[in-house]
Amino acid sequence: MPTRALLSVDTFLLRKIHDSIGRGPVQFRLAGNGAMWPLAIDAPIQVVIADRRTLSELLFNPELAFGDAYSDGRIEVRGDLTRLIEIILRSQLEAGQTPWLSRLWNSWLDLVQANTVKGSHRNIHRHYDLSANFYKLWLDSRMIYTCAYFPDPSVSLEAAQVAKMEHVCRKLCLRPDETVVEAGCGWGALALWMASHYGVRVRSFNISHEQILFARDRARQEGLSDRIEFVEDDYRNISGRYDAFVSVGMLEHVGPEHYQEFGTIIHRAIGNSGRGLVHFIGKNQPLPFSPWIRKRIFPGAYAPALRQVMDVFEPFNFSVLDVENLRPHYARTVEHWLSQFERSSNKVSAMFDSEFVRAWRLYLCGSIASFRVGNLQLFQVLFAGSQCSSVPWTRAHMYADDRSEEKQAAWIQSAS
Amino acid sequence: MPTRALLSVDTFLLRKIHDSIGRGPVQFRLAGNGAMWPLAIDAPIQVVIADRRTLSELLFNPELAFGDAYSDGRIEVRGDLTRLIEIILRSQLEAGQTPWLSRLWNSWLDLVQANTVKGSHRNIHRHYDLSANFYKLWLDSRMIYTCAYFPDPSVSLEAAQVAKMEHVCRKLCLRPDETVVEAGCGWGALALWMASHYGVRVRSFNISHEQILFARDRARQEGLSDRIEFVEDDYRNISGRYDAFVSVGMLEHVGPEHYQEFGTIIHRAIGNSGRGLVHFIGKNQPLPFSPWIRKRIFPGAYAPALRQVMDVFEPFNFSVLDVENLRPHYARTVEHWLSQFERSSNKVSAMFDSEFVRAWRLYLCGSIASFRVGNLQLFQVLFAGSQCSSVPWTRAHMYADDRSEEKQAAWIQSAS
Repeated sequence: MPTRALLSVDTFLLRKIHDSIGRGPVQFRLAGNGAMWPLAIDAPIQVVIADRRTLSELLFNPELAFGDAYSDGRIEVRGDLTRLIEIILRSQLEAGQTPWLSRLWNSWLDLVQANTVKGSHRNIHRHYDLSANFYKLWLDSRMIYTCAYFPDPSVSLEAAQVAKMEHVCRKLCLRPDETVVEAGCGWGALALWMASHYGVRVRSFNISHEQILFARDRARQEGLSDRIEFVEDDYRNISGRYDAFVSVGMLEHVGPEHYQEFGTIIHRAIGNSGRGLVHFIGKNQPLPFSPWIRKRIFPGAYAPALRQVMDVFEPFNFSVLDVENLRPHYARTVEHWLSQFERSSNKVSAMFDSEFVRAWRLYLCGSIASFRVGNLQLFQVLFAGSQCSSVPWTRAHMYADDRSEEKQAAWIQSAS
Repeated sequence: MPTRALLSVDTFLLRKIHDSIGRGPVQFRLAGNGAMWPLAIDAPIQVVIADRRTLSELLFNPELAFGDAYSDGRIEVRGDLTRLIEIILRSQLEAGQTPWLSRLWNSWLDLVQANTVKGSHRNIHRHYDLSANFYKLWLDSRMIYTCAYFPDPSVSLEAAQVAKMEHVCRKLCLRPDETVVEAGCGWGALALWMASHYGVRVRSFNISHEQILFARDRARQEGLSDRIEFVEDDYRNISGRYDAFVSVGMLEHVGPEHYQEFGTIIHRAIGNSGRGLVHFIGKNQPLPFSPWIRKRIFPGAYAPALRQVMDVFEPFNFSVLDVENLRPHYARTVEHWLSQFERSSNKVSAMFDSEFVRAWRLYLCGSIASFRVGNLQLFQVLFAGSQCSSVPWTRAHMYADDRSEEKQAAWIQSAS
């Protein structure tokens, strides 16, 4: 076949890809032979595809192929990667369809990444047992790897993570000497905050060995070991009775088929008189994460629609008291993470390799884009048992400057 | 059969009823022959049943029989009626079961009270077309027949209804000259408030002829007829495009089988760029209203669980931004209504008859009890289309004292 014919086939395929993402301000190029679409050369974003194999993979299984080829360097993006993903996500939202190969991949991943006790352990190990030194490079000083709360978008990440912990504690109306059980505690920041600033006793469960060791060490350093117990165990093994339950950024790893079981465990822990808060990445509609994210970054993860989460609360007659959607806060949080990550990319590359850097860059940019476009949401759900007596009359206390104990006691009393 | 034997049968049946409500501090008596249970005579609540027919109806179909017999005077309650219903509801909650006759009744009512366009008209007519003069006797001066918002529980009903309208308007972040469509407007209070205090243009739909006439009259009196159009039509016939959608206390009359259709109408009205608020009586679990309420007070009404309400939002990719449960506020609201109602009971009796007074007393006391026990909830759900740009960064603006336009504009801008 003459070169000119091949060139026109390449151009045709590049055009198909360009059409599939809604004809945004993006130019696709095939390295080597100069094939490109659109022909205008001033597109602010250029996607350079290394070879024909990658090009055809992109056509057949776009989500997975893009992720893998970007990671191993067969795709290069010149321009704003986050913006490119936003364009792709918007076109998917408008089309309202998941490509069939993605659906197939998702079914397969459901199977091999099932969140059984053993499966959860394997899934969690792959992400959270990466060295704490790696996460230190780009998280805040307290190592909080969940959505922050920005009272004002200009607030620093450091302050926004403290504000998030305050936001959670205020919602839960924690009082001194109450007992709290936490499912999934990361490196322990929220447990430490609750114990030191609210005087509660905390038991925190986590199956990430690395994180538990780190958290215990911090509790010792801060002299809080007598008030916090970090337990290296699955949330399914939570025992004992508590005043409150909290789980920040863990429901994503529970899996929708386990939500009712999760509710059983919460109900066993707080009964009908307790209250709780679950903070998680969600969706407007029940749809899986992108298969690339599930395959390479978060094995076994699932972001539920609110409807699905009701399996946690409904069977136990829990009342949903407050649902807050903090979606823009997560976009901002990951923007901070990304900029720290880029500043540390040489160190990350030395710790792992350049493919790892590219994969994680894609994951961070993709997260920002998803929260910006609305492909992902961030929900905080506050709930209470039918006999809970510590529900305040309004939410005003969460935004009040005067948060003295007397005032808080009055709020609670007035509601009962 | 000798009297003594009959007496012991009566006592046995009274005991069965007493057992069925969890053996609370209630004494059941049969009028005439002195049969009672428990035998102690100092119970703070006494239920006096007029005859054996009523007694046996109570055993076979307790919910409906109690309501009907209380209304027509065959059951007399000495002591706190609300407290009695609380005891009954708590025992039902613990048993976790609806009596089979109630289930049968509910299926029958689903059929005859279906919320088709014609059925809705008939259902709404039966409750809301009662004379405005009747409702004037016990509602606040603005005639708001939905849950108020008490910034503090000691606030007057009058102030709490204003606070509720403010709460709704703040959640919606209304700005001058925006357009709002309202589904179900009662006697027009919220539409008038939005137009006069937020400078928006409102189109309000209602199928209650009496209410529409009343609302139009008020708009004329307040010189707002150019900013508000009160349309006597079904919500299914909403036409036009608006910045915001609002519906307070109407979803209860839509019926769960019509939620997706309701969502279609909202989406047609505000598209992907608008936002909306739905305020409604809900439940922790999908269960129908008591059959007596459905038969005698609110034909066709249904209080959904949150899971069911997602049918309104999910298919249209609406993001749920904020869910607030105002359950204790509704108990307080109805306490105010009840005390006004009791003060006006002679007038109500003169308008209708004493059976009507008793039936409505039971409905009001039953509502207070349901909100206290948690049998009913009150949800406000704020939502937005995927391209909505007027979502503020946090909810702090709702609780701020400084609500100048500049400040509000800043909040909105900072989020986009």
